[in-house]
Amino acid sequence: MDSVKIIEIKQSVFENNDRQADILRGELKKKGVFLLNLMSSPGSGKTTTLMSTINLLKDKVKIGVMEADIDSDVDAKTIATSGVKSIQLHTGGMCHLDAEMTRQGLDGLETGDVELAILENVGNLVCPAEFDTGAVKNAMILSVPEGEDKPLKYPLIFQVCDVVLINKIDVMPYFDFNMEKCKEYIHMRNPKAKIIPICAKTGEGVQEWADWLLNEVKIWREA
Amino acid sequence: MDSVKIIEIKQSVFENNDRQADILRGELKKKGVFLLNLMSSPGSGKTTTLMSTINLLKDKVKIGVMEADIDSDVDAKTIATSGVKSIQLHTGGMCHLDAEMTRQGLDGLETGDVELAILENVGNLVCPAEFDTGAVKNAMILSVPEGEDKPLKYPLIFQVCDVVLINKIDVMPYFDFNMEKCKEYIHMRNPKAKIIPICAKTGEGVQEWADWLLNEVKIWREA
Repeated sequence: MDSVKIIEIKQSVFENNDRQADILRGELKKKGVFLLNLMSSPGSGKTTTLMSTINLLKDKVKIGVMEADIDSDVDAKTIATSGVKSIQLHTGGMCHLDAEMTRQGLDGLETGDVELAILENVGNLVCPAEFDTGAVKNAMILSVPEGEDKPLKYPLIFQVCDVVLINKIDVMPYFDFNMEKCKEYIHMRNPKAKIIPICAKTGEGVQEWADWLLNEVKIWREA
Repeated sequence: MDSVKIIEIKQSVFENNDRQADILRGELKKKGVFLLNLMSSPGSGKTTTLMSTINLLKDKVKIGVMEADIDSDVDAKTIATSGVKSIQLHTGGMCHLDAEMTRQGLDGLETGDVELAILENVGNLVCPAEFDTGAVKNAMILSVPEGEDKPLKYPLIFQVCDVVLINKIDVMPYFDFNMEKCKEYIHMRNPKAKIIPICAKTGEGVQEWADWLLNEVKIWREA
């Protein structure tokens, strides 16, 4: 596949994002679409984790992926090779997506038969955490090379996430990364956060994450 | 040293940031202070690179460091152990620093005898690139684990930086990182960007960066 659909996202005009997010969540509930918002720093492995997750889930649930980036379409092209529906969202320099911008993406994705829609947010630990996208669950990836102190420096994103995937555990021997300290810092920000260490490249730990996600999709669609 | 000075940065009231940045640069020129703005993703090694740079330069030039973070004071404490003046700036959730916010930091640093003031910006590849801080030069760090495709996805930060340090080259054997592609992508965004591969942890390449920086400080102070 050489080209993917690219949506140029327009800035929102709504002042009350929380209200728009609740409306969007309500609409998605009626349509039976579970929206996952996936956040992280640039280069922590969002796309590789998604590829690994899709491989485990694509025969069990209909998946659609929105790849948000300021520029390029490399990630949407990568996801498209997995066989699931994939589009690229260009944010035009904007550092995050809010609920209305996410809605533009979902319109572009054409969610007709999609049961699990995944938004790969812009790589940024600050701004995306401030805006409810209308997602049912928020997940984030923290990768081993970034260091275990990130919950100390970027509190909000850890507070708003239901799950934290600690990625690239295969390179732990080459970095000074303290897994126990990392878990302690995450739970200091958010005692309820589920923490799953994974290696998206080798697949280690990804089954646990995929099982959790599939279960959440079922609960949402059946509730 | 158990405690460092912490400045709570207030949001700016100026609409024209570029104008404020030019004014600040003019004032710094009169005082003989060279301001470096150092940007990167979270966890790419800004503080370790600074420690390594300070060790090479502290006997040659008077250095003062401003560590900007949303929360915590771990970085300012680390820098303080190097013996140079170091303060922590808290941005109160804000994702970047503009010129007026940088001025608040410089006031807190008390730049009286400082010749080289370094601002470690908030870890973020998007927002900091949009705001001129009043710095004479902008530098950024891209670390090997983040991948060589970052200039494709985050164009602006590569356009505004005079130097790109490619850090953590010691772990290249464990990542699929194409150094030549990376240099090509950076130069696609900014043909004039100086690129220096380094390993802040072992010191490899840091001398070249320190020499470049010291030379720029001399040019600025003597011009």
